[in-house]
Amino acid sequence: MTDIFIAGVGMTAFGKQLDRSLKHLGAEATGLALADAGAAQRDIEAVFFGNCVQGHMEGQDMIRGEIVARAMGIERVPVINVENACATASTALHLAAAYVRSGAADIVLALGAEKMFSTDRARMFGAFDGAWDVHETEANRDILLAMGEGVAVPEGTMSTQPYSIFMDVYAAMSRAHMRTYGSTQAQLAAVAAKNHVHSTGNTLAQYRVPFTVEEVLKAAPIAYPLTLPMCSPISDGAAAAVICNATGLKRLGGGRDRAVRILASVLQTGSERQPTDYDRHVSRLGAARAYELAGVGPSEMDVAEVHDATATGEVIEVEALGLVRPGEGGLAAERGETAIGGRIPVNPSGGLECRGHPIGATGLAQVHELTLQLRGEAGGRQVAGARLGIAQNGGGIVGVEEAVTAVTILGR
Amino acid sequence: MTDIFIAGVGMTAFGKQLDRSLKHLGAEATGLALADAGAAQRDIEAVFFGNCVQGHMEGQDMIRGEIVARAMGIERVPVINVENACATASTALHLAAAYVRSGAADIVLALGAEKMFSTDRARMFGAFDGAWDVHETEANRDILLAMGEGVAVPEGTMSTQPYSIFMDVYAAMSRAHMRTYGSTQAQLAAVAAKNHVHSTGNTLAQYRVPFTVEEVLKAAPIAYPLTLPMCSPISDGAAAAVICNATGLKRLGGGRDRAVRILASVLQTGSERQPTDYDRHVSRLGAARAYELAGVGPSEMDVAEVHDATATGEVIEVEALGLVRPGEGGLAAERGETAIGGRIPVNPSGGLECRGHPIGATGLAQVHELTLQLRGEAGGRQVAGARLGIAQNGGGIVGVEEAVTAVTILGR
Repeated sequence: MTDIFIAGVGMTAFGKQLDRSLKHLGAEATGLALADAGAAQRDIEAVFFGNCVQGHMEGQDMIRGEIVARAMGIERVPVINVENACATASTALHLAAAYVRSGAADIVLALGAEKMFSTDRARMFGAFDGAWDVHETEANRDILLAMGEGVAVPEGTMSTQPYSIFMDVYAAMSRAHMRTYGSTQAQLAAVAAKNHVHSTGNTLAQYRVPFTVEEVLKAAPIAYPLTLPMCSPISDGAAAAVICNATGLKRLGGGRDRAVRILASVLQTGSERQPTDYDRHVSRLGAARAYELAGVGPSEMDVAEVHDATATGEVIEVEALGLVRPGEGGLAAERGETAIGGRIPVNPSGGLECRGHPIGATGLAQVHELTLQLRGEAGGRQVAGARLGIAQNGGGIVGVEEAVTAVTILGR
Repeated sequence: MTDIFIAGVGMTAFGKQLDRSLKHLGAEATGLALADAGAAQRDIEAVFFGNCVQGHMEGQDMIRGEIVARAMGIERVPVINVENACATASTALHLAAAYVRSGAADIVLALGAEKMFSTDRARMFGAFDGAWDVHETEANRDILLAMGEGVAVPEGTMSTQPYSIFMDVYAAMSRAHMRTYGSTQAQLAAVAAKNHVHSTGNTLAQYRVPFTVEEVLKAAPIAYPLTLPMCSPISDGAAAAVICNATGLKRLGGGRDRAVRILASVLQTGSERQPTDYDRHVSRLGAARAYELAGVGPSEMDVAEVHDATATGEVIEVEALGLVRPGEGGLAAERGETAIGGRIPVNPSGGLECRGHPIGATGLAQVHELTLQLRGEAGGRQVAGARLGIAQNGGGIVGVEEAVTAVTILGR
């Protein structure tokens, strides 16, 4: 199969950017990715643009990518507008790679951009409602929340402030994991503390404040066992990658020594299963396929970026990816195995919990991090000698499970 | 390049279907396409799902395709949610073809589904607002409407009922065409009358009532020179196509003799130009590329389905596609050249004006029509001996021109 390369990456700082438009964010990330690839606007033969909430937030849907492309001076080429809930940017990457492989283009752009912050908090948190089947929200929510039964919720551990319904689901998933495997709230805190320490090395992260396990446990509660530093925030931001084949790489000149290969890009949807049937977890299915395509196994991974929308997300995902044994996602963090310097560093960027989670951009932010890591350009957060990296990016709920997971394996 | 085939097509009746959900419409079109291709759900390796307005209409965005796929019993495969305003379904087709060509799958589904009707008329017509740059709507609208200056608007020829802003833009485009080429309102009426006569042969069309030129001219005004039968209606509906390579076609068994080839699928965005600079019209650029890819010319086309969101749309598009001489799109209809039995039949299905325009489904409805025509299965509206067909599907406005046009050439 044709080799597909990441010739360059770029991303904005993630955070609250009320004064910047989607065009500004998209243009900045694209400009950085083009410069990183040694490419100009005219080199881009197609744009795969991911965004989720601009329709909900400001009535802009349908042609979001064309608007951003025009603002960036990219004209006359195919522009594809993609959505896949929190896995949107990985979907853009998946399509970009397939498009180049199809022979339709040599050099294309995958871009994810999202503006979520608003002074209208109800609208802001309501943006997540569309990531469920709106005709089944209550029925599915009840089934998902029932997962958490059988584990006592201590008094005063549920926030009274508005937050996304997804945090209640993650809390129920956390308690189900505690019940099934005997995992603990302290283990979740270890995941979060590790990611917050990692984030101090990432100048683009939304939060860059180190936390101890004790500080995470004592922080403001969201929904037991989750506390605030265990949860990804609302974010604005954009991330981009220039994707090409060998011909494209040659055309860009000089980039080959820094190019990273896409060894596998898998999009996996689920099928009916019980929420705690971890063996049929959508990420387990997707990862199995990705390892097969890449011809490598989980033990060969040097670094991982996974979808820690909460610390529990990281726990479940590192297990599903086979990076740790079933039930030991939290324990691995407690033991330091998933910290930079450990056996398999996870979320050296700080993850969604600290880097932030502009949902249509996150998948490409993960790819941005892995690309820097595999090129040895991650500075103070560099994972020594990283040659193979894996990213997992999940999104939405259909029925009672994740709607989609994207698993990407990159290599030098 | 790998041959890419349409193994089967299916579509629902278009029209007002308040009691049916997006899932029902999508499942019906898919079931028909699968049956037509001799395929089962388990044969489908990826789904490209197009929809534009469900976020606006009912808060459902992000994972629309996964929801519909699950309702259809298609599980565990990649599902891609695509938007591109009124060119959404053609974009799904474009991606489906590229995905198969990339080697990622042998058999995939392209599906467009849209529910637009609502008892809330303000919300219903507001659905089109997202197809503009919402931060520039007024400035761009003023420039576009100024196109129509210099042609007098007779009294009583502007509707006072609510309608889509796009009809005002099309009215201005109509008057600019009249001013530039001396085309007439009667020519536009000839286009509409021709399509309404065509529609009487299409049992899936929203309107199947023949009109004479005089009846079109005397009908209720929308925005001069447009009257009601010259304008596409609000519609609900879905259309689907099973796309595959030769391996897939073999696997499906027996379909080869009916398979239609995709000779070209081009997505074209525009660049800065004056609205009346017809030589640089986005469809002219897209068509030139499509003819080049297919290795055929406009004179070889046997049948066309073009984006007659209004009769003026058809006039401008048949000129841009090179099917008639510049300025003669209306004249060609008046002369009967674009009617079934004429030199180059255009919109034998009745077009958007009569078949209806569920915006996320229209591109695949055009492909449905061309596929039937090229297979000789179009019944009373069959274009005799059709071997090559072209579809053009446009969408949205960026700056002051069409955001995107899709040009597809099919052949036996």
